[in-house]
Amino acid sequence: MAGGLTRMRPDLELAARLFDGLSRTTRQGRGIVRDSYGAGEQAAHDLVRAAAATLDLEISVDAIGNLMMTLPGRDRSAPRVLIGSHLDSVPQGGNYDGAAGVVAGLSALSALRQAGVEPAHDLTVMAIRAEESAWFDVPYIGSAGAFGLLDPACLSVKRSDNERTLESALIERGFDARAIRDRRRLLEPARIRAFLELHIEQGPTLVARGLPAAVVTGIRGCKRFRNARCLGKYAHSGAVDRPYRQDAVAATVALLHHLETVWVQAQDAGADLVLTSGELYTDPALHGPSKIAGETRFVLDLRSVSQATMDAVAAQARAAAARIGEAYRVSFDLGVTSDSPSAVMDARLRRRLLSLLDQPFEMPSGAGHDAAVFAKAGIPTAMIFVRNEQGSHNPDEAMALEDFAVGARSLLRLLLDFPL
Amino acid sequence: MAGGLTRMRPDLELAARLFDGLSRTTRQGRGIVRDSYGAGEQAAHDLVRAAAATLDLEISVDAIGNLMMTLPGRDRSAPRVLIGSHLDSVPQGGNYDGAAGVVAGLSALSALRQAGVEPAHDLTVMAIRAEESAWFDVPYIGSAGAFGLLDPACLSVKRSDNERTLESALIERGFDARAIRDRRRLLEPARIRAFLELHIEQGPTLVARGLPAAVVTGIRGCKRFRNARCLGKYAHSGAVDRPYRQDAVAATVALLHHLETVWVQAQDAGADLVLTSGELYTDPALHGPSKIAGETRFVLDLRSVSQATMDAVAAQARAAAARIGEAYRVSFDLGVTSDSPSAVMDARLRRRLLSLLDQPFEMPSGAGHDAAVFAKAGIPTAMIFVRNEQGSHNPDEAMALEDFAVGARSLLRLLLDFPL
Repeated sequence: MAGGLTRMRPDLELAARLFDGLSRTTRQGRGIVRDSYGAGEQAAHDLVRAAAATLDLEISVDAIGNLMMTLPGRDRSAPRVLIGSHLDSVPQGGNYDGAAGVVAGLSALSALRQAGVEPAHDLTVMAIRAEESAWFDVPYIGSAGAFGLLDPACLSVKRSDNERTLESALIERGFDARAIRDRRRLLEPARIRAFLELHIEQGPTLVARGLPAAVVTGIRGCKRFRNARCLGKYAHSGAVDRPYRQDAVAATVALLHHLETVWVQAQDAGADLVLTSGELYTDPALHGPSKIAGETRFVLDLRSVSQATMDAVAAQARAAAARIGEAYRVSFDLGVTSDSPSAVMDARLRRRLLSLLDQPFEMPSGAGHDAAVFAKAGIPTAMIFVRNEQGSHNPDEAMALEDFAVGARSLLRLLLDFPL
Repeated sequence: MAGGLTRMRPDLELAARLFDGLSRTTRQGRGIVRDSYGAGEQAAHDLVRAAAATLDLEISVDAIGNLMMTLPGRDRSAPRVLIGSHLDSVPQGGNYDGAAGVVAGLSALSALRQAGVEPAHDLTVMAIRAEESAWFDVPYIGSAGAFGLLDPACLSVKRSDNERTLESALIERGFDARAIRDRRRLLEPARIRAFLELHIEQGPTLVARGLPAAVVTGIRGCKRFRNARCLGKYAHSGAVDRPYRQDAVAATVALLHHLETVWVQAQDAGADLVLTSGELYTDPALHGPSKIAGETRFVLDLRSVSQATMDAVAAQARAAAARIGEAYRVSFDLGVTSDSPSAVMDARLRRRLLSLLDQPFEMPSGAGHDAAVFAKAGIPTAMIFVRNEQGSHNPDEAMALEDFAVGARSLLRLLLDFPL
């Protein structure tokens, strides 16, 4: 399936029309509101479904609302390739987070349709439901649900803004909550040749490097000390000298500073790692300008594509907390970690995608994506990042159509390569 | 005035009776409540005044309520020695903070009376009003007011728990608010030979060193950055790598860690310094466990007996904030400092007191005291600290009468030395 086809371009007219339609249909005030299993997400599904219909794709919706839009292959019984992402957004989000991956899939299938290409196997664009946990505090509802991986208890999780349960939201949209209750498998991993997801980058790396797109090496897992504490002793800031202090702030500063050196060393050694304390506070009821603080609370968030790296750094954090706690006469209680595993992208797909970029660049994904669920189900999975200004999850997301074109073209070319 | 008198002991029976009476009269629940210009402070004044009457001391009360209890000297026109401290307490304070200095003075004068000593000049125990700023947010009302040093605007400051002004509190007790309004001098520095204050130590140094008492070198001043901020940029903790972060917590940690090394170096070089950040917090409305923090607020409290040390460290803090801000791509705004000057104790009195201790030890005072006001008025001033468990400003203050005796005896011996 090579030759003249390598000059094929994704359908950017369709892409521009879809982005424009999504923005007009689902914007509320400044930002985008495509609430999971709500009216906003549904409007996006309706818009995308209508476009798929004009491309004469086969359309189906699974039991929990994932929308499947298929260009049939010559061998309908052969495992198919899925191209997908989610269509929901956070409250007051941007127009591209999630949607770009669905639009990329449709713009590729449209190009294939226009060129009269009949693929060897089915190519399906999957518009996935409810990836964001902003509405229901459950991540990956659509993709994890499609593999029967959701804990049925999630059905009683209430939507953050209106207290309605996930179950009632599913039923209201005409979907089948029993599929989740019965852990029913709606997708069979063995029937999926590959999962491909294009997504905007949510950080500043591509902007800073002046690159339009990148291949994703893996999706960082997270190991988080959510409720870390340091307990010292409140005392008068003037009256207690250094050797007698039990200063929770000083000890916490020493710990966090030490962990920054651990981070720098890990990176120098080539490890993938980010390390963040985004919440840190003394107790407003007890602290004071002329007091030594007797307590701090903080979060320690470790992320890496390597589980071994996260485990090693978490162990170093615990050891340092014990050592520094003793030195500062305080006690640290880092508490248990909450863990979400990392997901590695398929090496062969990564190499192939990289070879399709004019400016080849690879980077990890710091945020989670549906692709992680597919990778963990054992399906060869790849991701393409597209440059995006201002980060994501805010109304100011800004993805240039030219950059999208670079990513979507590498996706289309990869499709032409199958079966690899 | 030497010889057999050097074996003289302060009147510890009187001291025990006064401490007991003060505790019974002014305890409310667990703690002591001797509210400045309120019923609790007045009850303490009444109790002390009655004891002075039984010692046949001359008693007077100045225009703003300071109680003067005098053992007349042979030369009534010669400058006198004042021995004093305050009788008020913080809300739910302990029994010894302040009161110990007044009781020490009376137990010394009682011993002199019993021995039939007639001093060369007047010896006056001064029970000072309203040292604590917990009730009216004005420090040293009694002592600063006695020198005509209070800003008359303080008369309209409201009491923290009942909104009544200082002026109305003075009038209600029968005192003369005009003395403050007119900045009237109630004490003439030239007429005071020395001011001597015994006070419990408010930190753990003497407990840690196993010493009953110490001579105070000076009273630390304070240079405080009350409203320091660091401004960075909120971002996703997983999606933004180290070189692109504007992490306000990481930068603040780097600054505070650097300042700890500055502190250690200053101490190694022999400087007196304590350095505290007792308030430090990210913004609870905007921070999050998976966010890089875009802002911190913190307090930086520098204290030293040396103004030059405080100025130098504050300058180092500003320079470090600029340098670290640049390195971390954030901006620090340390804001203005609020300053209270340090006070140095009289070198000759210090040496003499030190020679009177069996285990000579000197240390700075971290908290402020009325003695600072007298020192700043140019009066030779000395302080004695007595060991105290559990810190001060809480119901658990614990001073042993044996330790008090060591401090009070050195005070009595010093009195016997005058005129030096």
